Amino acid sequence: MSIVRFTANPLIRPTDVKPSRAGYEVVGVMNAGTTCVDNEILLLLRVAERPVHDADEVVAPFLHPDDPAKGIALLRVRKDDPNLEMTDFRVFKYKGRTYLTSISHLRIARSKDGLHFEIDDAPALVPARRDEEFGIEDPRITKVGGAYYVNYTAVARTGIATALAVTRDFKTFERKGLIFAVENRDVTIFPEQIGGQYVCYHRPVTFGPGRPAIWCARSPDLMHWGEHTHVCGPRPGCWDNLKIGGGAVPMKTDRGWLAIYHGADDTQRYALGLLLTELDWPDKVITRSNKPLLAPEAPYEVEGFFGNVVFTCGAIAKPDGQVIIYYGAADKCIAAAETSIDYLLETLQS
Amino acid sequence: MSIVRFTANPLIRPTDVKPSRAGYEVVGVMNAGTTCVDNEILLLLRVAERPVHDADEVVAPFLHPDDPAKGIALLRVRKDDPNLEMTDFRVFKYKGRTYLTSISHLRIARSKDGLHFEIDDAPALVPARRDEEFGIEDPRITKVGGAYYVNYTAVARTGIATALAVTRDFKTFERKGLIFAVENRDVTIFPEQIGGQYVCYHRPVTFGPGRPAIWCARSPDLMHWGEHTHVCGPRPGCWDNLKIGGGAVPMKTDRGWLAIYHGADDTQRYALGLLLTELDWPDKVITRSNKPLLAPEAPYEVEGFFGNVVFTCGAIAKPDGQVIIYYGAADKCIAAAETSIDYLLETLQS
Repeated sequence: MSIVRFTANPLIRPTDVKPSRAGYEVVGVMNAGTTCVDNEILLLLRVAERPVHDADEVVAPFLHPDDPAKGIALLRVRKDDPNLEMTDFRVFKYKGRTYLTSISHLRIARSKDGLHFEIDDAPALVPARRDEEFGIEDPRITKVGGAYYVNYTAVARTGIATALAVTRDFKTFERKGLIFAVENRDVTIFPEQIGGQYVCYHRPVTFGPGRPAIWCARSPDLMHWGEHTHVCGPRPGCWDNLKIGGGAVPMKTDRGWLAIYHGADDTQRYALGLLLTELDWPDKVITRSNKPLLAPEAPYEVEGFFGNVVFTCGAIAKPDGQVIIYYGAADKCIAAAETSIDYLLETLQS
Repeated sequence: MSIVRFTANPLIRPTDVKPSRAGYEVVGVMNAGTTCVDNEILLLLRVAERPVHDADEVVAPFLHPDDPAKGIALLRVRKDDPNLEMTDFRVFKYKGRTYLTSISHLRIARSKDGLHFEIDDAPALVPARRDEEFGIEDPRITKVGGAYYVNYTAVARTGIATALAVTRDFKTFERKGLIFAVENRDVTIFPEQIGGQYVCYHRPVTFGPGRPAIWCARSPDLMHWGEHTHVCGPRPGCWDNLKIGGGAVPMKTDRGWLAIYHGADDTQRYALGLLLTELDWPDKVITRSNKPLLAPEAPYEVEGFFGNVVFTCGAIAKPDGQVIIYYGAADKCIAAAETSIDYLLETLQS
């Protein structure tokens, strides 16, 4: 077999998701963490929404700066305001400060067949802390024992960091705070201990030497991380020449840990590729995809809120070797592609 | 009293330090970690050295890229090479890659009076790992129980990170690896546990929202860090408007944790200021210096390898309340200033 997009793609569109509050519209549903619960596939969707507003203004929703418990505050700026600098549709600067045009929360969707999803009407996890004031994004789910560890991107004026929450039932979540300080995202926690420690990939950034790359860290307790090592970085002249970061939670195979990661090139095209590392040394790369496994081609991947993007936060590997990769397409909707562990490993031999 | 520079400043100059290898010259001795050992003040100096070379070339020394154990390799580039981009005296790019014009190691100096130092002829700790290939810099020393924990900046092509080593005698050092991944420096580990955990300040960087700021982290074991919180950042219109980072290891006072930190303004002037935080919550700021405690004024602070810089990695607080701040001046030499805990706290009341 190969890798095949679902013909029903996109599986979940913004219009399929109820806004979490009156007067808001959902502009993107994407980048879902994945796991299996009670024989169902569970997606933890990133839902980006914004207040409905006039065409001649931009609006930034964020947690009230005095007290996050006061809920959402809005900054409204007319598009002809000289203090406004638009970065792209997603971000603007006003009086030198950065704001987002939408705020994201996490929402649960469930499916028996992996194709048709029932989407909760209410959020599972909403921004609530000062370090989440601009939203929570891009969850990854790792099952450890009987608990599901959900790491997600926490965005605030102080930067973009990675937070951890734990749940046993996807009804109540216990927040554990930031496990990686700014700027760090694309964290994927391995599903088992290696060498007596928990392991993750993470994606820090640099001002000086170095590029946005995949790093490995180890932890005794999933809360405190250290023993950082560089795993791999962008490759000049390649499909992932600008920046790379973890995607789905790594899958254990006979040949090593298999991780689906994302790479961006200097045209800001985001594609998916594979990383195979040693089972005992997840920071030692055996091989990587020379070509993208999945690159934006379908119309829903090329055109959207932010086009030319396929970006994954999770895949489901079934006991028979089938793999379903769920991915955000063009920062707007959720799509999926089906493949197998055998095929994925085969692509790495060429 | 107030704060008074030593009249003998600079206390240690590059010419006072023997190069670690033949054919090299010391270009800077600065940013020393400090502690007391056997009734002596011990400085762990950052010594920056470079191969003596012709005026029409730049040379980058770094650990051999194939195998760090092979020692130092050199990249020599003629100044008229079109592939060369000089960033400043300290950094250049060649064919798009970043290199440093010097390589730093750590060297011990001892003093009975805090003024006259005996400097070891040989390094205490040299770059040895792949993540230290461009040098090790800016150590801070924290005594925990009977052991001295030395954290230092590890510089490599993959970025600038923070490593940890531990010693009991300043003769042998056990390397513990990277405690903070790229880009992160200016780590100061508190001298005692707070709320049952070790605590440090660190200084991550951001691409998106946020500025280079002081963050707090907690650890069960000094090796793995989490529970990150933002402490404070640069202040618009102030002496520290560009970036800030930890300086000396925080000192415990009746009024709170007193930390000497550095702040840079948009002219790249580096000055020192004070941060006072709650004893039980070292991430909760009580107050900060509105004016610099020490700004570059003396000739050796204004002119040097990189001028207009005062930068500290350590101060000695004596039982009688006297404080000696050791600092790197103009990235070239070591100077010191004397003050007292009482005076430092007093400056924060204005």
